[in-house]
Amino acid sequence: MLSNIRIILAETTHPGNIGAVARAMKNMGLHDLRLVSPKIFPSADATSRASGADGILSNAVVCDTLDEALIDCDLVMGASARRRTISWPELSSHDGAKLAAKESQEAKVAILFGRENSGLTNEELDRCHYLLHIPCNPDFSSLNLGAAVQVIAYELRMAVMGSDEVVKTAKRSEDRLSTANEIEAFYGHLEQTLYDIGFTQPERSRSLMRRMKRLYNRVRLEKKEVDILRGIFSMMKEKKDISRSDR
Amino acid sequence: MLSNIRIILAETTHPGNIGAVARAMKNMGLHDLRLVSPKIFPSADATSRASGADGILSNAVVCDTLDEALIDCDLVMGASARRRTISWPELSSHDGAKLAAKESQEAKVAILFGRENSGLTNEELDRCHYLLHIPCNPDFSSLNLGAAVQVIAYELRMAVMGSDEVVKTAKRSEDRLSTANEIEAFYGHLEQTLYDIGFTQPERSRSLMRRMKRLYNRVRLEKKEVDILRGIFSMMKEKKDISRSDR
Repeated sequence: MLSNIRIILAETTHPGNIGAVARAMKNMGLHDLRLVSPKIFPSADATSRASGADGILSNAVVCDTLDEALIDCDLVMGASARRRTISWPELSSHDGAKLAAKESQEAKVAILFGRENSGLTNEELDRCHYLLHIPCNPDFSSLNLGAAVQVIAYELRMAVMGSDEVVKTAKRSEDRLSTANEIEAFYGHLEQTLYDIGFTQPERSRSLMRRMKRLYNRVRLEKKEVDILRGIFSMMKEKKDISRSDR
Repeated sequence: MLSNIRIILAETTHPGNIGAVARAMKNMGLHDLRLVSPKIFPSADATSRASGADGILSNAVVCDTLDEALIDCDLVMGASARRRTISWPELSSHDGAKLAAKESQEAKVAILFGRENSGLTNEELDRCHYLLHIPCNPDFSSLNLGAAVQVIAYELRMAVMGSDEVVKTAKRSEDRLSTANEIEAFYGHLEQTLYDIGFTQPERSRSLMRRMKRLYNRVRLEKKEVDILRGIFSMMKEKKDISRSDR
């Protein structure tokens, strides 16, 4: 679906920003970039700021007109700071990205970004079905072009991949978690140790053990951690036995 | 709450990135910036990229150690690309920002960003309660420092202000929407016009009018738009009357 979303930059002034856009796109898995009459392109500044996303730059299609850039696109969204003079269907970056992600299942979606200083012209706005607005400080609302593309591209990825992508792919570590049996054996060992060292007595240990379990259950112990803790218990008991035999 | 969130940059190499961070912060309403041993600062590059957020730069506290930067902070989150070797409590940028926003109601929260090339050291990670991970293309996962701060700052603002900030503050335009009565009068005028010009006949107009209403109800007409459309209807009828009288 991300391959059905095209980023279009209209008359960008600073080539470094084009490079930053390419990097932001590749970071988020977008690839289709069109540039309408960029002031300077290609450029060493763009390549340097792309920082490894050169492929996006070399595949970028440079167009003379917005019409050319919009070819094949079904839905057009324009990124824009709040405009008070024109009423236009406006979506937040979050909601707009959700709509774009949905539409991109079957249609080609274009997201259009304007000039660094003056944004989109009225003629360009006329081509947009929706305006996208990034919520921001109303007293300082002009985002850098690369930063604006970064936020929208991030929201697009979140919308397409689902917000729990991280949770799904997050690996705790190479070490496996302890099984329920291992944890039970651990608690048994802990309780026995607490008796052995004289910290508590069998008839008084119930509420203490409940607290201990609440603590360790929260952290979801790994096998290796259990081994280490049980090693410590064993050492504690040994120490106690030695000190007893010293008496 | 945003004033209780501090951004800390550890040993930043490129001063331009510090400027980009300042701009991203101000865009999203953050103000508290600390720099741990930046390579070059202050710098004209930083000021230029800050692009009006110079206040954040001049108020930024330069620290020799992370300890100094973390003073007063209760919760520390480290922004980090995925690490496969260490198991660490990890949150997505979205969930982490929600937690930070919640905690910032009562506590000082620090968000720590590492070096451009090598991220955070193990000693710095040890100070973090959570790692923040921005979901991204696993084959190209290194975001520019300014871009990473932009995404996190954006999520912080969304979390603090609520995702419907846009909806709340969005003004359609200065023009008020039409009242239900005005819309009814408009539909009456439309229907009459369609008869007058011979487009349909009273006994056949029901399904046509239903289509028309479905269309116009979707756009939620403004008063001024209704006036314009009714002006057009009047003109159509006039034209028809004229052409009839010409016969």
